[in-house]
Amino acid sequence: MDDVKNNTDLEAPFSGFGGTLAIIGVGLISGSFALALKDKGYAKHVIGVSRTKASEKKALELGLIDEALPLEEAVRKSDFIYVAIPVDATIPTMQRIMDLVTDKQIVADAGSTKFALCDALKNHTMRNRFVATHPMWGTEYSGPDAAVKNAFVGRACVICEKEKSNPGAVALVEHIYRQLGMNIIYMDALNHDVHAAYVSHISHITSFALANTVLEKEKEENTIFELAGGGFESTVRLAKSSPAMWAPIFMQNRENVLDVLNEHITQLRKFKASLEKENMDYLYELMENANKIRKVLDK
Amino acid sequence: MDDVKNNTDLEAPFSGFGGTLAIIGVGLISGSFALALKDKGYAKHVIGVSRTKASEKKALELGLIDEALPLEEAVRKSDFIYVAIPVDATIPTMQRIMDLVTDKQIVADAGSTKFALCDALKNHTMRNRFVATHPMWGTEYSGPDAAVKNAFVGRACVICEKEKSNPGAVALVEHIYRQLGMNIIYMDALNHDVHAAYVSHISHITSFALANTVLEKEKEENTIFELAGGGFESTVRLAKSSPAMWAPIFMQNRENVLDVLNEHITQLRKFKASLEKENMDYLYELMENANKIRKVLDK
Repeated sequence: MDDVKNNTDLEAPFSGFGGTLAIIGVGLISGSFALALKDKGYAKHVIGVSRTKASEKKALELGLIDEALPLEEAVRKSDFIYVAIPVDATIPTMQRIMDLVTDKQIVADAGSTKFALCDALKNHTMRNRFVATHPMWGTEYSGPDAAVKNAFVGRACVICEKEKSNPGAVALVEHIYRQLGMNIIYMDALNHDVHAAYVSHISHITSFALANTVLEKEKEENTIFELAGGGFESTVRLAKSSPAMWAPIFMQNRENVLDVLNEHITQLRKFKASLEKENMDYLYELMENANKIRKVLDK
Repeated sequence: MDDVKNNTDLEAPFSGFGGTLAIIGVGLISGSFALALKDKGYAKHVIGVSRTKASEKKALELGLIDEALPLEEAVRKSDFIYVAIPVDATIPTMQRIMDLVTDKQIVADAGSTKFALCDALKNHTMRNRFVATHPMWGTEYSGPDAAVKNAFVGRACVICEKEKSNPGAVALVEHIYRQLGMNIIYMDALNHDVHAAYVSHISHITSFALANTVLEKEKEENTIFELAGGGFESTVRLAKSSPAMWAPIFMQNRENVLDVLNEHITQLRKFKASLEKENMDYLYELMENANKIRKVLDK
């Protein structure tokens, strides 16, 4: 990325950005976003909105936010409103926000599902102030403590329904994500949800189910404690993820997730069949096919 | 671990160790083992035995081995013979080695399955020169290029049927693994194979199957390339693993692996049922149970 060129090209969208950012939800994504915008000098003042006093206090202590306010007050005082809360809470919260915003403000969300939200907002008179985004970065941790500097770098950010947002609003959001080191991809909301099921949601379900498999069978817990190595840790790491964040994602994207889950069970059954029949050639074939994922991972 | 104390206590087993190590197979595990033993000053000369000239040449170039020899010659010249080849090849190779060793030599293997090998060697007259081990460390890469310094650190190493090995031989092997930073666990071979199915083999099958799931459905490959993030990478990383190494492991441990695989499919079906019935409480319950894996991973 050519920073100098980008800065020059995209000065215009920043001319209207006063530098007050509101983050709705003070957790992993919004906290990391606020840290990055402060670090880059874009956010001069950050207002945090949280359901809990404990999170507000922690976010203030950690310097993620400068001030904690109720939703309406935060929205009124901000140039840019960034929503990163569980996807089921996003829809009603976003409707309240959109009823408050003016045509000088920009709203974006960071949710892992996009169709339900875009659909809910499609007829709102201020729809063009909203930019639907999904920065494809995260960890298995949540809450303000989980926020980190230099998040997002090198990952993809999906922007949906770009054509329904004000071009200046899109340009500002794109500029910010690019400055965070993200690669922007455009997609319609339905397609986004299909792809997200494949490259993100199924990984989480697999990991949760694998943790339950091992916990179910390995009653001698000390043995897991002692034996669990790198491979195990890698595949079950996501099982530490927050149910409050992920259950609504799976439920909101249930049709796509069910399609992928069915396919995944079918693929596991092929391994099962190869073992039951002691068919080494078939087992090899399945594994060699899986090895093709190298070209995706070692890109 | 108190290194000083260990060194004093375990000087005795080293008095008979001349410092010539033979590694049978020159790959990830044996190469990393040789590097570590050279680094610690235990291996003064390392002989490599490989099926292919290319691997021998690479291992010599990388300094993993000082000399490449055929199996019989390597065994005759060595104090310590370390076997790390696919588990199906291990049994006949180990039988050839055991027919050659004297009561001054020590043989150990590093295989991911233990019952079939221990069973094959149980009546060998030199059985007590063999120590059955499984250092629970690895990566998704294989071959001499994959060998790394400082492998094994902080991981568990299982020793099976300790009572069938010469106490001096066990003491030397334990001492070496401890010096590599490993924590020794004792288990019978049958139990080892059950636990290995849960904490290692199933993770690999899940990962292979997940890769096949995504490759099957995501025909628009560029989308995976662009969207695949950290969570996806973490869960499918093991799908890059070598079929030549892992297919024989799954097949040799097929009864245990099938048990775990059936349980895993059952656990995935529970997620499927919760989504089909839109039962948020059940979905939460499944995920909250999976979260208990935190106490294993964050140990």
